[in-house]
Amino acid sequence: MPYRHYFEDAVGKLHSERRYRVFTDLERNADQFPLAAWRGPQGAIDVVMWCSNDYLGMGCHPAVTSAMMEAVSRFGAGAGGTRNISGNSHPVVQLEAELADLHAKASALVFTSGWVSNLAGISAIAGLIPDCVILSDELNHNSMIEGIRRSGRDKVIFRHNDLAHLEHQLRAIGTARPKLIVFESLYSMDGDIAPVAAIAKLAKTYKAMTYLDEVHAVGLYGARGGGIAERDGVMDQIDVIEGTLAKGFGTLGGYLAADTAIIDAVRSYAPSFIFTTALPPAVAVAARTAVRHLKASASERLLHQRQVAHTKAALTEAGLPVMDNRSHIVPLFVGDADLCKQASDLLLERHAIYIQPINYPTVARGTERLRITPTPRHSEAHIDALTAALRDVWHQLDLPTAIRYRARAAE
Amino acid sequence: MPYRHYFEDAVGKLHSERRYRVFTDLERNADQFPLAAWRGPQGAIDVVMWCSNDYLGMGCHPAVTSAMMEAVSRFGAGAGGTRNISGNSHPVVQLEAELADLHAKASALVFTSGWVSNLAGISAIAGLIPDCVILSDELNHNSMIEGIRRSGRDKVIFRHNDLAHLEHQLRAIGTARPKLIVFESLYSMDGDIAPVAAIAKLAKTYKAMTYLDEVHAVGLYGARGGGIAERDGVMDQIDVIEGTLAKGFGTLGGYLAADTAIIDAVRSYAPSFIFTTALPPAVAVAARTAVRHLKASASERLLHQRQVAHTKAALTEAGLPVMDNRSHIVPLFVGDADLCKQASDLLLERHAIYIQPINYPTVARGTERLRITPTPRHSEAHIDALTAALRDVWHQLDLPTAIRYRARAAE
Repeated sequence: MPYRHYFEDAVGKLHSERRYRVFTDLERNADQFPLAAWRGPQGAIDVVMWCSNDYLGMGCHPAVTSAMMEAVSRFGAGAGGTRNISGNSHPVVQLEAELADLHAKASALVFTSGWVSNLAGISAIAGLIPDCVILSDELNHNSMIEGIRRSGRDKVIFRHNDLAHLEHQLRAIGTARPKLIVFESLYSMDGDIAPVAAIAKLAKTYKAMTYLDEVHAVGLYGARGGGIAERDGVMDQIDVIEGTLAKGFGTLGGYLAADTAIIDAVRSYAPSFIFTTALPPAVAVAARTAVRHLKASASERLLHQRQVAHTKAALTEAGLPVMDNRSHIVPLFVGDADLCKQASDLLLERHAIYIQPINYPTVARGTERLRITPTPRHSEAHIDALTAALRDVWHQLDLPTAIRYRARAAE
Repeated sequence: MPYRHYFEDAVGKLHSERRYRVFTDLERNADQFPLAAWRGPQGAIDVVMWCSNDYLGMGCHPAVTSAMMEAVSRFGAGAGGTRNISGNSHPVVQLEAELADLHAKASALVFTSGWVSNLAGISAIAGLIPDCVILSDELNHNSMIEGIRRSGRDKVIFRHNDLAHLEHQLRAIGTARPKLIVFESLYSMDGDIAPVAAIAKLAKTYKAMTYLDEVHAVGLYGARGGGIAERDGVMDQIDVIEGTLAKGFGTLGGYLAADTAIIDAVRSYAPSFIFTTALPPAVAVAARTAVRHLKASASERLLHQRQVAHTKAALTEAGLPVMDNRSHIVPLFVGDADLCKQASDLLLERHAIYIQPINYPTVARGTERLRITPTPRHSEAHIDALTAALRDVWHQLDLPTAIRYRARAAE
């Protein structure tokens, strides 16, 4: 094969920078979440997952799994086509109605991933507004950046969650030119929360449209799990809400909720939507079950927040460098890619605790971390064991106990 | 909301061009595939699907659905994270090994859709080869075009399946400059098949790398379902094979199979892979079951080809304009977007037969068609009923009986 060396060199570069990623081979255990079987050098052993984005454990909820199994039995394994060509299933139609209702919007549209929903949504929306300029938070997720790039529109970056800077940019563009503000409600690596209401207010003042990514908040915040915008009472002030079915709702896929005109335009114009096989009916049934459950039940959210608070308190008391925030994300500062990997390996091998190292490009170099996500199913005993294990690892590797940022924004 | 009129205008344009897409609301019936319940104005009625891309009905195969149900019970509904962050499951690892084996490659990588696998694969591969120029068949699928575009590399289009034109382009670029030839084995809308061996030979002569999309062929052709390249005995002559799990294998997802250096580089560098939640373990189990089944069993392929031949013969004998090819796709020429939609509506409403109209941008304007996909589960009675229904619709709408192409390449 020609050109092999280019690929080998590219991968070699990652090894030399100590950020080559090894995927941990796990077998989730639905009955005993957050336990999983890890297949390591000693064969399969049970480990406690402390970094799952199945934040509430809904992917293992009996109501969700039994609904999914029944749907597989009725509808089969897959969708059989794109939404337009034989793949539109009644369960997906029902799921979209459920999601529109969750966010109090007229319509919703489901995609096979959150990544694609941002690519499709931002590129189609900005692409259909002539001369639109996109204002983007500097820490926006890769999928949003890809959507902006694919739109071909002018982009202006505003400093992370910085209202004054955003207003400065809005004023500089002026009210005449169409504007789309693109931001997240909850930034997943730092766990900090955007001033959604204040951004919506600025948007109104300067006649901008708003696009809010709530992927790390849906299911988890708000009276019915509608996210930060619901919690803050401003869902109606946001034009487009993007969410995922793969985190709080425990399944797979992404979605947009908005006015029918917007949803119909994205549905009709985004190639990444048009030319993709639809979500399997059984996945749609599972997702809808999780959404409905979390609309009616707050107990998962309450228990989640309690275990998050207990975890933060325990780690802080142990002198570990918890990066402060008001969300369910518990980042522990390490600040070095190699040490971060070593810490993760030690936790797995010595303590049967699985926490993936978070290195560049997911976070900026110099801000490498362990990112801990407590769930309602982590017990007090789990928290105690985690704290003891981290103490040991911090001691073994002589890791920092203070937070030293060498860089800020993702590179 | 500001800017609503832009979205309304964009959708209005589709209405005025008679190519606004209405998604048919279907409920697949796993026990009675290819039957589905259609929710129309008269409530739910049973219809026969004649346009599914679940070409072999594997999405409804009892071995596939029962394996999927058991996996949901064991592993839960979702993956819980990206491949790197808690979402790598043992079933996905096993599926990748199965797919690498299917194509006799060292490695494989699974994505949540075929669309994303092309976006990620082409953009990452071409992006890692300095100064690479991409040679692309003019009828390549949208996902491949998006991958080429995302790579930022120079692109040269060669005429569809035209070896002389491809060679002319290769010679013009010269052997010194790196080249990637990107093409499909089976073009899904016309059903014609590429001269894979001859293209591979040209690639060798001019030192080009080859990237082959086999999404409409995997599971369906070759002794073990490896696709056209397997059937033609040239799998080892192709550098990268891209396939889907959502058509012949009846589930969801896309994949690449290639040398380990290539797979590792795509795995490590493609943002659309890195930042996407992994396929649910249960979907991976279902897909692997289908792949394994079709490696060992040729009966589905044989029956498929037989029913395709019967359908083509019956429609041709009825004087209907079957667009000739040597594959399992049976396109019927209509040549007008509005008439195509009307034909589809009549089939559904009067004959309980579901065949989606295929209009621009999926095919070029003036080449609108009904695209029929017989499966092994369509009986002789189904074929007879289809033939009679199409005769009636052709008569009612005075549709063309000859094929008149006004345009060639997709616009």
